[in-house]
Order: sequence, then C-alpha cells, then structure tokens
Amino acid sequence: MSAWSLVYESYEPAKEKLREALCTLGNGYFATRGAAHEAQADGIHYPGTYLAGGYNRLKTEVAGRDIENEDLVNMPNWLCLGFRINGGDWFKIDEVEIIDYRKELDLKRGVLYRNVEFKDAEARVTRIFGRRLVHAGNPHLAAQELIIEPVGWSGRIQVLSALDGRVINAGVDRYKELNSKHLQVLEKRVIDEETVFLKVHTSQSELRVAEAARTRIFNGDALIGKAVEDVEESEYVGQVYEVEAKAGEAIRIEKVVALYTSRDRAISECGLDAREAVTAAPDMAELMRTQALRWAQLWHRFGIDMEGVSPKQGEDVLRVLHLHMFHLLQTTSMISMGLDAGVPSRGWHGEAYRGHIFWDELFIFPTLNLRVPEITRGLLMYRYRRLPQARRAARREGLKGAMFPWQSGSNGREESQEVHLNPQSGRWIPDNSRRQRHVNAAIAYNVWQYYQVTGDKEFMFFYGAQMILEIAASWSSLAEYNQEIDKFEIHGVMGPDEYHDAYPGSDEAGLRNNAYTNIMAVWVLNCALEVLKLLPRVRREELCFELDLGQKDFDRWEEITRKMKIVFHDGNIISQFEGYDKLEEFDWEGYREKYGDIQRLDRILEKEGDTPNRYKLSKQADTLMLFYLLSAEELSALFERLGYEFSHDTIPRNIDYYIKRTSHGSTLSYVVHSWVLARSDRRRAWQMFRRVLQSDIQDIQGGTTPEGIHLGAMAGSLDLIQRAFLGIEARGDVLWFNPCLPEELERLGLQVCYRRNPIRVEISKKHLTISAMDGVSETVKIGFRKKVYDFNGGESRVFLL
Amino acid sequence: MSAWSLVYESYEPAKEKLREALCTLGNGYFATRGAAHEAQADGIHYPGTYLAGGYNRLKTEVAGRDIENEDLVNMPNWLCLGFRINGGDWFKIDEVEIIDYRKELDLKRGVLYRNVEFKDAEARVTRIFGRRLVHAGNPHLAAQELIIEPVGWSGRIQVLSALDGRVINAGVDRYKELNSKHLQVLEKRVIDEETVFLKVHTSQSELRVAEAARTRIFNGDALIGKAVEDVEESEYVGQVYEVEAKAGEAIRIEKVVALYTSRDRAISECGLDAREAVTAAPDMAELMRTQALRWAQLWHRFGIDMEGVSPKQGEDVLRVLHLHMFHLLQTTSMISMGLDAGVPSRGWHGEAYRGHIFWDELFIFPTLNLRVPEITRGLLMYRYRRLPQARRAARREGLKGAMFPWQSGSNGREESQEVHLNPQSGRWIPDNSRRQRHVNAAIAYNVWQYYQVTGDKEFMFFYGAQMILEIAASWSSLAEYNQEIDKFEIHGVMGPDEYHDAYPGSDEAGLRNNAYTNIMAVWVLNCALEVLKLLPRVRREELCFELDLGQKDFDRWEEITRKMKIVFHDGNIISQFEGYDKLEEFDWEGYREKYGDIQRLDRILEKEGDTPNRYKLSKQADTLMLFYLLSAEELSALFERLGYEFSHDTIPRNIDYYIKRTSHGSTLSYVVHSWVLARSDRRRAWQMFRRVLQSDIQDIQGGTTPEGIHLGAMAGSLDLIQRAFLGIEARGDVLWFNPCLPEELERLGLQVCYRRNPIRVEISKKHLTISAMDGVSETVKIGFRKKVYDFNGGESRVFLL
Repeated sequence: MSAWSLVYESYEPAKEKLREALCTLGNGYFATRGAAHEAQADGIHYPGTYLAGGYNRLKTEVAGRDIENEDLVNMPNWLCLGFRINGGDWFKIDEVEIIDYRKELDLKRGVLYRNVEFKDAEARVTRIFGRRLVHAGNPHLAAQELIIEPVGWSGRIQVLSALDGRVINAGVDRYKELNSKHLQVLEKRVIDEETVFLKVHTSQSELRVAEAARTRIFNGDALIGKAVEDVEESEYVGQVYEVEAKAGEAIRIEKVVALYTSRDRAISECGLDAREAVTAAPDMAELMRTQALRWAQLWHRFGIDMEGVSPKQGEDVLRVLHLHMFHLLQTTSMISMGLDAGVPSRGWHGEAYRGHIFWDELFIFPTLNLRVPEITRGLLMYRYRRLPQARRAARREGLKGAMFPWQSGSNGREESQEVHLNPQSGRWIPDNSRRQRHVNAAIAYNVWQYYQVTGDKEFMFFYGAQMILEIAASWSSLAEYNQEIDKFEIHGVMGPDEYHDAYPGSDEAGLRNNAYTNIMAVWVLNCALEVLKLLPRVRREELCFELDLGQKDFDRWEEITRKMKIVFHDGNIISQFEGYDKLEEFDWEGYREKYGDIQRLDRILEKEGDTPNRYKLSKQADTLMLFYLLSAEELSALFERLGYEFSHDTIPRNIDYYIKRTSHGSTLSYVVHSWVLARSDRRRAWQMFRRVLQSDIQDIQGGTTPEGIHLGAMAGSLDLIQRAFLGIEARGDVLWFNPCLPEELERLGLQVCYRRNPIRVEISKKHLTISAMDGVSETVKIGFRKKVYDFNGGESRVFLL
Repeated sequence: MSAWSLVYESYEPAKEKLREALCTLGNGYFATRGAAHEAQADGIHYPGTYLAGGYNRLKTEVAGRDIENEDLVNMPNWLCLGFRINGGDWFKIDEVEIIDYRKELDLKRGVLYRNVEFKDAEARVTRIFGRRLVHAGNPHLAAQELIIEPVGWSGRIQVLSALDGRVINAGVDRYKELNSKHLQVLEKRVIDEETVFLKVHTSQSELRVAEAARTRIFNGDALIGKAVEDVEESEYVGQVYEVEAKAGEAIRIEKVVALYTSRDRAISECGLDAREAVTAAPDMAELMRTQALRWAQLWHRFGIDMEGVSPKQGEDVLRVLHLHMFHLLQTTSMISMGLDAGVPSRGWHGEAYRGHIFWDELFIFPTLNLRVPEITRGLLMYRYRRLPQARRAARREGLKGAMFPWQSGSNGREESQEVHLNPQSGRWIPDNSRRQRHVNAAIAYNVWQYYQVTGDKEFMFFYGAQMILEIAASWSSLAEYNQEIDKFEIHGVMGPDEYHDAYPGSDEAGLRNNAYTNIMAVWVLNCALEVLKLLPRVRREELCFELDLGQKDFDRWEEITRKMKIVFHDGNIISQFEGYDKLEEFDWEGYREKYGDIQRLDRILEKEGDTPNRYKLSKQADTLMLFYLLSAEELSALFERLGYEFSHDTIPRNIDYYIKRTSHGSTLSYVVHSWVLARSDRRRAWQMFRRVLQSDIQDIQGGTTPEGIHLGAMAGSLDLIQRAFLGIEARGDVLWFNPCLPEELERLGLQVCYRRNPIRVEISKKHLTISAMDGVSETVKIGFRKKVYDFNGGESRVFLL
C-alpha cells in the first residue's frame, strides 16, 4: 500500500459502510457512493449518488414538532450493473464464496477498483474486475467498467444495466423517522440499443435531474452482446444484454453516464443535454486517460511532499493526507467554482446534517486560499448570494445588518433543528444550537483572510466589503450597553462548545458574554472599520447609503471595540462565558472508567437525567478558538484596546486550563488543539495531529464516518501542515514563514499560490527553501524572522533554521 | 425636455410600438414592455415581459424546412391593471376622448410615467397618473402605481389586477409563421386578499417562472377597497377590487410583483421564493427611493458630461447617449454579472433575432470595459461555459480547437437560420450567414481587450487563455496551405458584409480569403502565441496537455502569421475577398432614385431576381472593420510580418474606396464609419455619429426598432465618445489618451475604471485634464503624446491640446 492508495484485501460486511464513505467518488458537482453490494442488479436500489446543492425541504412530524429538513438529495442510481450466468441468480457478493478480494481507491488518479474471484452455488469460479470514476474534468460524466472472466466454464452471461429512480436518503439511522423519499420520476425510456434515460425532479425544490447511460459490451475490441429485453418499472429503466462467454475469455462491460440538472448553466433542457452528452462521451479508456490527467493537474496544485523520520510513519501520514485532500477536492474544486454550492460539514457525499452549511468553512478555506483561492471566492459568493435571507433574519430580531444562520439551507434560511434525537436515550431534546451566532464572525473572518492572500479587490469592493459591513452592523446592534459598568455585552448566545446552551436550571436559552463570541465581534467591528478605509470613495458612499450606515454607526462600532466585556476567573483565565467559574468540576476519571469513550458526554449525561450545562467541560475548543484564529500579537492588541491585561502566560495558562476540560466530541477539536500546542508542546501537538488523521479512516467519533466524512477535520489536517508546520501567514502584503517541523518529520514541501504567484516551499530539519517559480510575474514579498525579502520569478533562497 | 428624459406629449397610435420599444424597462434580469394599451384589463394579454436568457427552441415547418427557433421568452404579463366606473366598460385608451396626455421616461431614475386626462362615453372626466419601474437593485422586483382622480364625478371604481400567462411572442411580424406560444401554466392561485400567484414553464426548455403580485388600494394613507371577486381562467389569475370614489379625491393603486425562475441561485423553489419576496417587498415609495438611489449609483459609474457648442444640440446628443446607456444597463449590468446570460443584439427586451448571441459584444464590451469591466467578465464567462459546444462544432467539421457559432443559442449551439424571409418578395431565401466564422476572432479579441484594461490574471489564466488558444487552434486547422504560392488560405467564409455569401452563379457557399477574416485570424494566432508566454508554466502545461497542443502547433501558428494570403486590387486596395475586383460596380444613383431608402439592397435585389453577390457593394463595413479594431501601428506590423506593403495612404484610400460602396444596411455600419473617419474627416465622422444616435430614436432601419432596440449601435455610440473622441486606449500597462473633440462639442468628461482605479477625464477645446481619484491605490501609468506619466491617488494633471 503506497501513500497514494487505500487498499482492502478482504471483504468484511460489517466494515463496508465505513469503507464506502471513504471510497466515495465525486467531482464537486455530484458524488457516487457504491453500495456494499455494488454489483447487484436485482432491482434493489443503491444508496446513492449525491448532487451538490440539490436540496429538499420536507416537513415531518417528529416528537410533536414540525421539523423542516432540507436534504441533500440522493440522485437516481446509475451504478446498477449486474450479471447472471445461464439464467441463474443475479450475482450478489454475499451469496458466493469469495476466493480472492481486493478493493483499491487510487487517490492519484481518482479511480476505484474492486476485483473479486468467487465460486458460485454451481461451483463455477469467476473473476470480476471492476473500476469506476466520476470525472474530475467534465463535471457531467461518470463511468464504470466490469470485466467478467469465466474460470474453467463457458456459458451465457446476461448483463442488466439500469438507472434507478427509487433511491431514498437512508444513510443516517437517526433520521429514519424523517421523510426520506425525495425523488419523483418524470420520464424514463430506452433510447436505443445501448442507451437508457431517466429524468426525475425533487419533490419540494423541483430540481430536475436527467441521467442518460450508455452500456457497451466487448470481447477484446469487438463489440458483442445485444439488448434482449427492456426492463421498465415505474421508477426504473434498464436493459438486459446477452453474451456467450468462453472459459478464460474475458468480457468487458463499459457503462458511461451523463448527468445534467435544471440548475446547470449553458444548457437547453437538462434531458436533451444529458442525452447529447452521453452520445458524445468518449470511451472508458479515454475517460481513464483524461481522469488521470486532471487528477495529475489537481495534485500538481494541491500536492504535499513529505518524508518521515520513520519512512513507514511518513508514508502512513501522507496517505491519510492524500485521502483528506482527495475528499476535499471531491467536494469543492475548480468544477464547483461556478456552482451555487457551499461546503457542508460532511462533504456533498455524506448525508449527515443533510447538506446544511455550518461554520466548517473556517477550517476549510485556509487550505484552499493557499492553493487555488478562486475556489474560496466561489464559496464566499455562495454566502454573498444569501445576504437577502440573512438580512431578513436580522430584521426579524430587530437587528440592523445581516445575521447568517447557524445551519444554512438552500436559500440561506436557518435550518437548525429545534429538537434533536439522543440515540442513547431515545429522547428528542430541545436544541438551542441556532444561538451560535459566532458563525457570522467566521464568515467575516473568511472574507478578510481570502483578501489577505489574494489582494482580490474586485471581490472585496463588490461583495466582500458588503458582507463584512452588514455582519458588523448586526453585531453592533446585538451588543447591549450596560451603563452600570460602562461595557457592552452580548447575551443569549452559544459558543462553539455545544455542551453549554443555557445556565443550569434556567428557562432562558443561551449564555451571557461568551468570550469567543465577544472577542470575535470586536474583531469583526475592527475589520469593518479597516475595510471602510480600504474602499474607494465612490464605493464606500454607495455602500453606506445602501446599507443605511453612517458616522453614528461607525462611532458606536469604535466604542464597542474599546468597551466589550470579557469575563475572567482564576486570574487571567478567560471565562468561556460569564458564570463559567460557578460551574462544578466534572468527574472525568469516574466517567472514563464507567463509559470508556466519553466524547459525546452530552448524550451520556442526558441519558442519566443530568446535563453538561452544570459542569466545567467542553465538547470542543471554545475559548481556545481565539488562539487558533488570532495571533498572540493580534490578541494582545485587542485586549489592550479593551483595557484588559494580556500577559506572557495568558495563552499557556488558558490552553492548560481548557485542554483538561475538553471531551473532544467533535473532530474539529483535535485540529484546534494540535494548532494551539504546535509551538509550546510539539509532542502533544503531534499526538493531536495524528488523532485528526484518524478521524475518518478509523471512524473515531464512533460510527459517524459511515454517515459521511468529516470535511472540516480533513481540511484542518491539511491546514496544520500549511499554517502550523510550515508556519505560512499572509499578512499585509507579505507572505510570512515561521516553520516548526514536527520531530517526526524529516522533510516537508509544497507549492502555494500567493497573489497569483506560485511559490515553492520546502523545509528540512535545518533549512527552509523558498522559490519563486516560473510564472511569478510580480515581486513577491516573503517574510522570515522579522525580515522581508523581495522575490522575483525564478529566484530561490535558503534560510537556516 | 431635459437631457434626462424622453417625453411624448401626445398619444399617437401609429407610433406607440416604437415608443414602447424605447420605453421598455428592464434590469438585466427581466424586462417589461408596456403595450400600447397599458391600462387595459379586459383579458387581452400584453406583449410582454422578457426574461434574460429564458430561451425556447421549437421546430416549425417553414418553406418546407425545419427551422429551429430559440427564442427569448415573453414572461407572464404582470402589468394588467385596469379599472372601470360604475360597472361600465373597462378603460381603453382608444375608446375615450383624450384631453391631455403625457408620457415620460425618466432616464435618471429609471421610472416610466404616463398621465392621461380623458372624457369617457358617459362624459365623465377622469385623470390617471401612472408610473412604473423594474428595480435596478433587487433583480426580482418590479412595481407600478396608478392614481385615478375623478374630475367632477363620484362613483364606484372597480380595479382588476391580474397575472396573465397567455402571452405569446408576437413582436416580430416576419416570425408570425413560427411558433409563438412558449408558456404553459403550471399553477395559478389567489393567495390572499391582496396577492395572486402564477407559475409557468417554457414548453421546451422547461424553465420555470413564478410571479407573485401584491395589489393595494389607498386613499391618502388609508388602505381602502377590498377584493370582491377572484378571476381565474385557464392561464390567467386576478382579483377585482371595489372602492367608492369621490370627485376630486384620488385613489391610488400599488401593484408590486416578485419574479423568480428555476435558474435562480440561492433559492428553495422559485414559487416559494416569489411568494416570500412579494410579502417582504417594500411599498412603492420605498421602491421609488431605492430605484433612484441605484440609478444614481449606476450613473455615477456610467455618466457622461457633455456641453455642445450649441447648448441645444449638446443636450439633444446627450439625451440620446443617456437613452443608449440606459438600455445598455437594462440589458447587462451588475445584476447580470451572476447570470448565465449573454448580450444579444436587440437587448433582452426586443424579440428580433430571438435572443441569439451574435458578435455585437465587439461593439458593446469596450464601453463596459472602461466602466465596470466585471460585467464584461460575466459575459465572457457566458462564452466560456459554451466551449464544449464550440468544441463539438469544430470536431464535426474536422477542425481542432473550438469554433463558436454565428448565432449562439441557449446551450451554445449554432442557431443561425437556414432560410430567411424577404418580406418584400415574400420568398424564403437560403441563408449562409453561419459562415461568418469571424465571430471567433471577435471573441478572442474581446478576451484580450478585457485583459488589457483589467490585468485580470485570474480570468486570463483560468478561462481567457483557454478560449484564445482553442479559437487559435481552430483557425489554424481551418487555414489551408497552398503550396503553389507558399501561402495559407481560408475558404468558404462570409465576412461581416452579409450581402456577399457566395460567388455569383456558384453553387458553393462562402467566399475565399475574406481580408477581414484572414487578418483577424492572424491577429488571433499572434495573440495566442503571446498568451502562451504570459501563462505560468504550470498552467501552460496543463492547458497544452488538455487541449492537445504542442510545439508543432505553435510552429504552424507562427508560420501562418507570416504566410496568410491577403488579396489586393487597384494598387493597395485590400480586396474584401478574393475575386472582389471582378464584380460589377453597382448603380447607386439609379437605385437611390428608384427606391429612396436602399439600406436593405439585399431585399430589393432579391425581389428583382438579382443578387448583391454580383456587385461591389457592402451591407456594412467589412474590410474597414480592420481599421476599427486595429491601430495603424498594429496593422502595419501585421502586414510587414505577412510580407505585404502598408503605406501611409493604405488606410485613407481603403476608407475612401469602401465607404462609397456601402449601403449601411446595419446600424453598426455607421459606428464603424464614424470611427474610421474620426481623425481624417471630422465633419463626416460627426455626421455618421449623429446617424448612429438616430438609429433607434428615429428608427432609421425602417421599422426595425419596434422589434427591439439595436444594442450594438447604442453601445457603439458610447464607445465613440470614449475611444474615438477621448481617444482612450489600454495598451501594455499604460492607459493612453489621444483625444479628438468634435468641433460641435465644447466639453466632454467621464470617469473610467482602469485596473480597478477610478480616473476622471475631461477635455475642452484646449485642455485635457486627467485626475486619479480617491480610491486609486496603485500608481497608474497614463500616456499622452508618447510620454508616460505616473498618477497616484488624488493627483491631477492638465495637458494642453
């Protein structure tokens, strides 16, 4: 097993759901997840094929409440490709004796292989070789190939190739009470001897999706086999082909599918375009060639070079990083730049959280910013287009500006659940998570970071500034002035730590003066004042007039940045929120002994009739998020401005305090902790980093990976490489380096794109090498140890570490 | 009448269709054209409300051939707002005695007014005051207001407010044999006492369009009137309201409509979003306020200051320029930046040419490039997204690269007609216009010009370079090497002059070696070689690999740029095409005498059984286009490279030769001629410029304006101001000025945006003043008379002319 592939040498039914999630193929436009029984063709549908941004909202009565679910949609399944021998049963892997098995995900080329040698009930031995791809260059194409080789027998093989519209969303067990049926078949037909066609629409959003599939069977180069039967059911269309097979002579089946939706651009009618595209589509060999080419291009831009002190460990780490990058690029890539799709926490290929957009961008954008920032731009535009809803949401609460929701649905509406299920107790619990207003700080922060890396003024002037200003306006009107103490306060919120959603025993939802929220609000207001200075007069006047902002507002913003309340306890411990110090200490050891895995303490405590609200414990980093997002210099300046002391031990003391009180009930928690420890405790930072790498491949959140990979943690691991280990920071007009190579690594290298200029970075134990590559057309300023160096195209410098 | 409004003081039925075309309101997303009888509510539909990029393709049997029509679609009509008094007839302007009438298009604020005082059959006198807008800020909203004032009578007024799905496309008489019915009503209902809802889809493209309309009636501030009747027909839904009116007391009706389509982004389902939007929509007063604000912002960016030597003439010129800018911005604006809409020759609010995209961009982009180039970027992306079709079209002809069609339809397919109707003879004539491959040179040229003005590397690297390279590849494979003369040739094409589509008597379509085509092909190949140097290595390698381009191709490109054949006659007259000199001279005087208007000689000659192919005559500039697009320096360099002589009199002799042989059968012709004469014959250039200004307001192409304004000519007039009179040229990294103020003007000024920096330009008879405005954050290089000056923010310089 190389650093470029994920290999399974045996078939293990209990693990197949997890492996499927890891082996899902996608291209940012749609994704295809093989079912455990991927070669079945017996009419049982396969969950599924996902479409980016194909949402659906259906009301379901749960626990006496209306829950609005806005789902990502499982598309009609195009994988259905089955066979049977001499009219026997259709092949099912569970019903044969497996002689040999190998499944391999080729991360370098974006191809999934599955080879099986088996003996069937009639004692015939057969070998099958399957491979498939979702094309990384042409968003509308996918293809699979199945080679069947009779070992020592000859006979008639029937092949069933179909498109199946009966798929439902059934990937998440605890959603099973919610409506899972989202597709209605509009049209299905056999087009010709090799092509079938299916068109559906989603029940609520009326998104039309058309698939056309072309199936051809070969012996060597000769086209063989003919359609002997059309199979049409109400939501299913397929064809049965028949061939005579000889011992030792393989037959090869190619199935190519084209997929278009009514949201696509440059189309006439999605059905017509799908049919035209499948007719014009190249064959499997050519698709394999161009797929490899596109992935080579992607890896050229997104690659990581790494050498471990232990070669084995280095390779293991690199393999997982490749897997993480692979899934990131399958969710959002150059292809998705033009789509109206955000970046959901489980990718577009996991059903958990139903495709809603949370704050994961905060962990995902840094990786994209330093590689192909145009992708970030597209994702920020996704937010920008949803400003009208955010503005309406702010108005409903009597706020100025715009307030983005915690869980953003198709048109940008709040889609956070009002109750959620505790699978351990079976109870539905009221859910206050929509009070996580800090998502708005994350959006403003993301806009600013994108601008730092790219200097993209078009974006900033037309779109970015407006987002930052409107978000700032809503923070300003949310902050209440407390005359008694001459401070501004923010009440009724939740921080990133979802274990605390209210004060114990209180009927009121939310907390007072969550430190992360308050400080980030100050950061946003500062940033907005900065942005105002940046804007050309014309545009500034336009925006102020349009958003009804004036000097009075800016004065208030300025005042808030000097008078926001932050609460402390035990000296300079930043209280996670006001009153945190009054909470009880939690019996960590007792619970660990009792339950083993205590990551999800919320569920455990709720089942016991208790609540985490009573204790000093966190699901994930909350106060520590500040050290993740802001440098010591920035934080110190903010504190000084606010009139609070920030001493040399503020950071280490707070890290030490909170790290002990965190259960890591979110994969993101390890990312943040690895980051904050990177410079003070490299050994522990590396442990945390290794934990991040295990998130999905070892499913450390107990069974959540089969519901979809954790994209924030995946991208977070890549970001740790870039911004923690290589210490890359875009600030002002300089790209700074402050590397900190983990002891376990020998060498690390990658290529970043800074203000359109490709820069190569390498570090070893002793050297940092920076090269401005061919294509660097402007002078790039590189900063290292407080000095700034000019780099022109072709120039290279080596710094001693 | 100021320079900011178009006013009609009388009602003239025969002229209303023309006035409607000029007074159409739009916002780049949809457009609304009032019918002559705009206050009718008798169930007769109104043509229409247009939607940008809502196409439809329907086959119709015409003249024994299948013609594929891809139309822009008339949307369900939302203007229906009628009234009747005491149960009498519904108001129809043709059936009353008009006492006073005034229609005014307020170009400054984007509002159309119509006030009528009339006496009805019962001798009652009534005044009505109408105004309406399509919102320039919120693409989804439009509104109208109708004030009814009984003069000396009191009684019961019934108001009918409806949405009408029965609209057809009937704006172009000669299309009447083609299918005109494109909408199918899916849903219609009365939502509540003030809201009706209608949802349709287009028959072929299945674009869903939802409209929700809210109607309120006021007396002063008091909401009065109530719905007394719902009116539902199969494709129509409305409500009748009833109020008691008193003499001298005006009642005021407000109708606000929200429109969404299934192609919109950030929506859930277009019907739901339309209903939500109309509920949240502000009232008329607020919409008027924000409309004026948005238009003020638009005029700030797109304004023109002008003073004529004769103030009256100056004002007249300026009014038409304002009208032209108004229509340009109603077709394509900041709103359309995110749409998948191109820029069609008659705007999105004229039915002629059915919304197809031709080469008019060539005349439209320069104006946008110097004001808000991001709009151009959006329109170039429209082309980029259609590369797959252009690539397939090239393959079908055995060419490499991509070949964009002459008339581009929804998904980028060729939609040029195969036959067209001569209304004068009633005959359907074979149409070779798809042989105008020169549209591809225009697209490459547009990409390059956009890049020159903006320096937008993201666009160039990701998209622009690919377009230029693929177009270059197709020109290269189209060019045939003629060994005998050691030259490359291009056969079977048409130039911009559509009067020549074949050699007289020949069965073969197209011409050999059209000079414009051949030279522009060389220009494109040169440009492509330039682009290759510009690309960072990574991207260059990616593209070459992907497009299968290598050194062999580039060598051939280089060779073609040295060996393309150009034909000359009469010394240095560039033959429009090979064999042009063999054609007969045309009897211009005889035909002028016989027919008066001979702009459309093609139709006249065809009716006579003759053909323009026999004569030395042009519909519009063909060879002279070279002088429009390329500077003397550029042309001279190209000629030198090709081994042809280019002498000091090449340009004037060719202008003189061809200008005499042109019938100006296209409004674009005057633009080009005004340009090429601007420096050699200022008086004549001004005459041509005035002719351009008359194009639509005086409907100089004989009845074509009622079918839709001529956007190329409109934008062309604005471009003459910018690039001919002010002489602005973005070349290298310098913004050059070479002004040439027409004698008829005293002063001219405007603001341009060069590489994101706002620059103010003013010229008078004696001075050129250039100011780098607040917001100029980089040093801008300004060139004047061969010297280059650095400008920083706030700096201003005056040059003597």
